[in-house]
Amino acid sequence: MRVHNFSAGPAALPLAVLERARDELTDYQGTGMSVMEMSHRSKAFIDIAERAEQACRTLLAVPDNYRILFLQGGATAQFAAVPLNLLGPRTSADYVNTGAWSVKAIKEMARYGNARVIASAEDTSFDRVPDPAQWQRDADAAYLHICSNETIGGVQFADFAADLSLPGVPLVADMSSDILSRPLAIEQFGLIYAGAQKNIGPAGLTLVIVRDDLLDQAQAHTPSVLSYRVQADADSMSNTPPTYAWYLAGLVFDWLLEQGGLTAMAQANGAKAETLYGLIDASNFFHSPVEPGSRSQMNVPFTLPDKALDAAFLAGAEAAGLMNLKGHRSVGGMRASLYNAVGQESVDALCQFMQDFEREHR
Amino acid sequence: MRVHNFSAGPAALPLAVLERARDELTDYQGTGMSVMEMSHRSKAFIDIAERAEQACRTLLAVPDNYRILFLQGGATAQFAAVPLNLLGPRTSADYVNTGAWSVKAIKEMARYGNARVIASAEDTSFDRVPDPAQWQRDADAAYLHICSNETIGGVQFADFAADLSLPGVPLVADMSSDILSRPLAIEQFGLIYAGAQKNIGPAGLTLVIVRDDLLDQAQAHTPSVLSYRVQADADSMSNTPPTYAWYLAGLVFDWLLEQGGLTAMAQANGAKAETLYGLIDASNFFHSPVEPGSRSQMNVPFTLPDKALDAAFLAGAEAAGLMNLKGHRSVGGMRASLYNAVGQESVDALCQFMQDFEREHR
Repeated sequence: MRVHNFSAGPAALPLAVLERARDELTDYQGTGMSVMEMSHRSKAFIDIAERAEQACRTLLAVPDNYRILFLQGGATAQFAAVPLNLLGPRTSADYVNTGAWSVKAIKEMARYGNARVIASAEDTSFDRVPDPAQWQRDADAAYLHICSNETIGGVQFADFAADLSLPGVPLVADMSSDILSRPLAIEQFGLIYAGAQKNIGPAGLTLVIVRDDLLDQAQAHTPSVLSYRVQADADSMSNTPPTYAWYLAGLVFDWLLEQGGLTAMAQANGAKAETLYGLIDASNFFHSPVEPGSRSQMNVPFTLPDKALDAAFLAGAEAAGLMNLKGHRSVGGMRASLYNAVGQESVDALCQFMQDFEREHR
Repeated sequence: MRVHNFSAGPAALPLAVLERARDELTDYQGTGMSVMEMSHRSKAFIDIAERAEQACRTLLAVPDNYRILFLQGGATAQFAAVPLNLLGPRTSADYVNTGAWSVKAIKEMARYGNARVIASAEDTSFDRVPDPAQWQRDADAAYLHICSNETIGGVQFADFAADLSLPGVPLVADMSSDILSRPLAIEQFGLIYAGAQKNIGPAGLTLVIVRDDLLDQAQAHTPSVLSYRVQADADSMSNTPPTYAWYLAGLVFDWLLEQGGLTAMAQANGAKAETLYGLIDASNFFHSPVEPGSRSQMNVPFTLPDKALDAAFLAGAEAAGLMNLKGHRSVGGMRASLYNAVGQESVDALCQFMQDFEREHR
């Protein structure tokens, strides 16, 4: 029996995708072998890889002057790859600090140059996205880095309506935990990267969407696996790519297209978030630590009126098949992650349990 | 129907492993979720990860003063990680050039320091491992790098009986395509690395076995995902690891233990290689380009008397369910890869086909 899986990542995948992977596991479409057993240079795998890239391009409406790369190393490898590839002759880049993942990106950048923190919500315990009108931007920065959704803090850029770009300063976004959750205007960004293990597929794959003109500034000591130019020229196969994860990502992309694409996902994600935040806000028992305008639709942290109730809440939730609701060890409380593969029925089941728990314990 | 898969990598996996992965794909042992959907911090996954590491340690008899890391990026990432982590205050390291993969390692090292090529088989078209007695070693080298098995050329170190270490110069080996094929004396090596996609599991996982005293010399600009110290301290979870590939590697390790471990695998691999090389050497039709003492048990390149026969050979082989026998584009001819998961029955079927083909075309 499948449970309701609210894991922050690696996270729930669509059951239809898992079932298809299962059915094809020992023999992919009559090839007599698993996708895992195929040379990445084989016709069968090249076909899988190209179709996945095309589906991704369609879903996100990626313009022709952007490359889509399927890499390894997770967002953490990109924390280094971004400055290694984009600093060029400059020595600094601008970073907005919205929480734990921003902090990690800033720390890694410090190995390569000056990470100027031009705005931070640290003073208010990372409860919001700092107002872009207040950012102290540097027109000579190599790039501007944001984390569009903070998985741990549950803070998300509501949209990209404010123009965050400056001429010559490309916008770089870590979208690990909200990519594919809503439509994007890719042309607002110079580079987007995302670890796969939330909305894309299994851990071990990293998606990078990068504008052509940013490919050629890598430092000489950039490991070739992290060089955007090397990987772009080799169609992400400068070395053996994570083939099975790439295949699964393709299945997820196909599933998203079948669901109606990202407009439909945004609608579904909006409805799920409204259900859960609605319950939290209507309650004097549960509490969201995040300002309403910056609340994440993907990761919903919440607290109970007394930490002493946490263990009972988690035990009761597990007994009801509601798994992985414990908040990140750094912030405590609860966290429900509502990625694309988490259905409204899972949110409804969670809300039902929360109401029952409140009645019992208030 | 499953085929005989002679792919050089990603390569055949044991059917028993694939079937178990299939059976557990949507619900791992009653957890109600796939291994792909589990947090890497969850009890269920930590248990999978620790058991895999322990099985690997048992199989290879890894001493306690060595760490086993489960990383991303493939051997190509290690081509950079090795100098980044091991050069320390020195500026050069010694490399033995036995073929295409050695060349790639040497080229990547050149980004970080001086790769001294102390022996090369290039003059003889990489048909052998250069005699260790002739290597021009530098007692001040940061390390000595070898590739234990050249997947493309089909050249393998027959054993490590010759003492390749110098005091203070650790031996580093790229064992991507022959790790787990035979027992090793790990203590002869400072560091061993291997992409998983031959004898370990699916692509996207890299195994690193590194001696404790080599963890603390990383250059300041080493990306943290490639830092052995960072990853060792975090039990390979400084960021989200490739969890599903790690799980599959664990299933492969368990399968190897069930088969009798590496002594049994060495015996089986020896028998398979003897069958195929025996046929080649007894024939005036097929030819091995590699010197007998340096022939790989894992990758067996061979040629037909006339290139014009290649297409007919490959077509006939495929019709007989013998797949992926085409040699690497850089060398041409044929190549049969005989990794652990390729059974004697596959080699026998190949040899039967080769004999029939010879009778028909000589």
